[in-house]
Amino acid sequence: MNQFNFTMPTKFYVGFGQVNVLREIAGEYGKKALLCADSTMGELGFLEKVKNLLKEAGVEVEVIDDVQPNPKDVDIDRQVAYFLEKGCDFTVGLGGGSSMDTAKAVAFLAAQNDGSVRDYVAGGVKSALEEVKQPYPVICITTTAGTGSEATKWFVVTDTVNHDKPGVGHDLLMPSVSIVDPEFMMSLPANVTRSCGIDVLFHAMEAYVAKCANAFTDMAALEALRLVMKYLGRAIENGKEDREAREGMAWANTLGGIVIGEGNSGTVAIHALGHSIGGQTNAPHGLTMCPLAVPYIERTWRADMEKYANLTRVFGYGEDTMSTEELAALCPEAMRGVLKKFGCDLTMKDLGVTEEMIGPMTDSVFHTMGGVLNNSLVEFTREDVIALYKDAM
Amino acid sequence: MNQFNFTMPTKFYVGFGQVNVLREIAGEYGKKALLCADSTMGELGFLEKVKNLLKEAGVEVEVIDDVQPNPKDVDIDRQVAYFLEKGCDFTVGLGGGSSMDTAKAVAFLAAQNDGSVRDYVAGGVKSALEEVKQPYPVICITTTAGTGSEATKWFVVTDTVNHDKPGVGHDLLMPSVSIVDPEFMMSLPANVTRSCGIDVLFHAMEAYVAKCANAFTDMAALEALRLVMKYLGRAIENGKEDREAREGMAWANTLGGIVIGEGNSGTVAIHALGHSIGGQTNAPHGLTMCPLAVPYIERTWRADMEKYANLTRVFGYGEDTMSTEELAALCPEAMRGVLKKFGCDLTMKDLGVTEEMIGPMTDSVFHTMGGVLNNSLVEFTREDVIALYKDAM
Repeated sequence: MNQFNFTMPTKFYVGFGQVNVLREIAGEYGKKALLCADSTMGELGFLEKVKNLLKEAGVEVEVIDDVQPNPKDVDIDRQVAYFLEKGCDFTVGLGGGSSMDTAKAVAFLAAQNDGSVRDYVAGGVKSALEEVKQPYPVICITTTAGTGSEATKWFVVTDTVNHDKPGVGHDLLMPSVSIVDPEFMMSLPANVTRSCGIDVLFHAMEAYVAKCANAFTDMAALEALRLVMKYLGRAIENGKEDREAREGMAWANTLGGIVIGEGNSGTVAIHALGHSIGGQTNAPHGLTMCPLAVPYIERTWRADMEKYANLTRVFGYGEDTMSTEELAALCPEAMRGVLKKFGCDLTMKDLGVTEEMIGPMTDSVFHTMGGVLNNSLVEFTREDVIALYKDAM
Repeated sequence: MNQFNFTMPTKFYVGFGQVNVLREIAGEYGKKALLCADSTMGELGFLEKVKNLLKEAGVEVEVIDDVQPNPKDVDIDRQVAYFLEKGCDFTVGLGGGSSMDTAKAVAFLAAQNDGSVRDYVAGGVKSALEEVKQPYPVICITTTAGTGSEATKWFVVTDTVNHDKPGVGHDLLMPSVSIVDPEFMMSLPANVTRSCGIDVLFHAMEAYVAKCANAFTDMAALEALRLVMKYLGRAIENGKEDREAREGMAWANTLGGIVIGEGNSGTVAIHALGHSIGGQTNAPHGLTMCPLAVPYIERTWRADMEKYANLTRVFGYGEDTMSTEELAALCPEAMRGVLKKFGCDLTMKDLGVTEEMIGPMTDSVFHTMGGVLNNSLVEFTREDVIALYKDAM
């Protein structure tokens, strides 16, 4: 067992109907909230529902209802100005990763009130995040089972100058409250269920075989993987009816977030390389990891055979009679089977990546995701990254 | 899955050598610490070690080195006065449950600075714990793998007037930092390893079959039980050498604490009735549950056969061919086997309980542990409690 440490300052509310807790608790965080959501939240009636609950808690509500997928630096800066202009006390992120990350970014940057979000990302003048001020409180309400943003100390922003997707991470970026209410997830279309659900799988799987993995994250990662294997197929196929599957995925997602967030394990090269695919193509985040998974496992399974053997088992492959090494060696095939099972057996070409993009994508990996890359059990040079990308085409 | 919520504000440091983190972090909590420990900490050199680390962090140290097992109300009140008189900023609890509970109690009561600890326990004039003030920070350093106090929002105090052991629980009672360094546990004698380790088993087992059990606590409780089954026997037999076993038990203990603490599951009738044995006999806390476990399981296994079947399995009993009901019905026998395996097959008589004590003990259960009792899956009337105690004689 390695030495490790973890903190979880977030208060979690998990289960059907838990959003109603807003009525009781929202008032503790201030008198005026900035509610950040994308346009579908209004169409589905969720925006109205949350707005009303906040009002019942005696909270005045300002709304941003046009959060875009993969939120851009320029939009965040505009939203920070709006938060300050309206004199808000806290933010509420309602939606998927984009809305929750927006809520986290706005609460953080409004408290600093000093420059653009671009100053705080890798390469920016304030990227060391020294002496940052305590952010305004953030309440996350996740409406997808993916990203795990409600349980992490990260937000990701699209850099419109460098065309990459750097992440900003700081202990103070943990949400104050996270509400994981599967009721919001019942109407998610199958393709969103799939791309978010597969992201959960990668959070858990990568964290399990990361350098920073520890006894706490191993426990939660394996539990998340068991839940994904049990429920993701059902949630994709029959998500409008299967409440148990939605609930299982909601919890798996939160566990995945805890593992990469306050459990301090984090993701590895799969996410590092996937982010750059997202920066170039705007493909749904969860899908960007799919082409990379098998080539990654082929390069790494020898580095910790016991763990890769456990992955093979949790993916439902292998026999009791096989040795640890045999099981570990089977892991690439098991991963291939899992991707196929969930309709995620994609190449980078399928996501719109061209050969010409590989150079800039590789630059971006080292520019913005070097720390994540180095969390892999195996070292990846620039040549290794290019080769992995090529295998994934 | 039930709705549930959890928070973990504590920052955990787990693993060999982690106590050295004090050098880096202690200064964040103030300029002067009150270090609470029992006399063995000095004998073992641990008191000196921690004092020096605090000094290296630039912290001045006041010491209480005579914490007694099952700390008394009168002692706590005296220590609170000492904390205030010396102008301390935070407490450090070094030792087992008694030292850590003392640190938590003193930090809490000094901040209130309003009356005796007896006012805050069940039946006391301030027992509703309304409008309590933020306690001074607490750093817990556990030197036993038992009690889990470093991960809970509880302290337990011996009421010298009513001869019971009420607990005081409040969200603000979570330690700021918990250090779980198995190095401190290497020299624990076998009998302490046993009584603390069996307490971990009960925390996890009871929380798993508690009314308030949830997906988060189920995961952590089963993991804790797996670790106890794997490592407790080794830690009892060869604890001076077997570092892996000590580490496994240290982590199991912390998981057990998380489960009953911020995971919000909590213990059940076994702990409720065990506390009253402790109040009457001063027997080691962990052992007080042993006589009660089998009679408790006999009365409850039908209430959730799936969970009791899982307990039977994790205890290493049953066959794959058995039905869930058959496995659940086997749980009392499995529990009996586990207690025997760890040298804990004790009757209440073995702990010094006489027939005459059963009446006052039963009174005390309802006086101080009613909430815990009601967390059981089965209802326990006064007659039920007496009958269970009699079965345990």
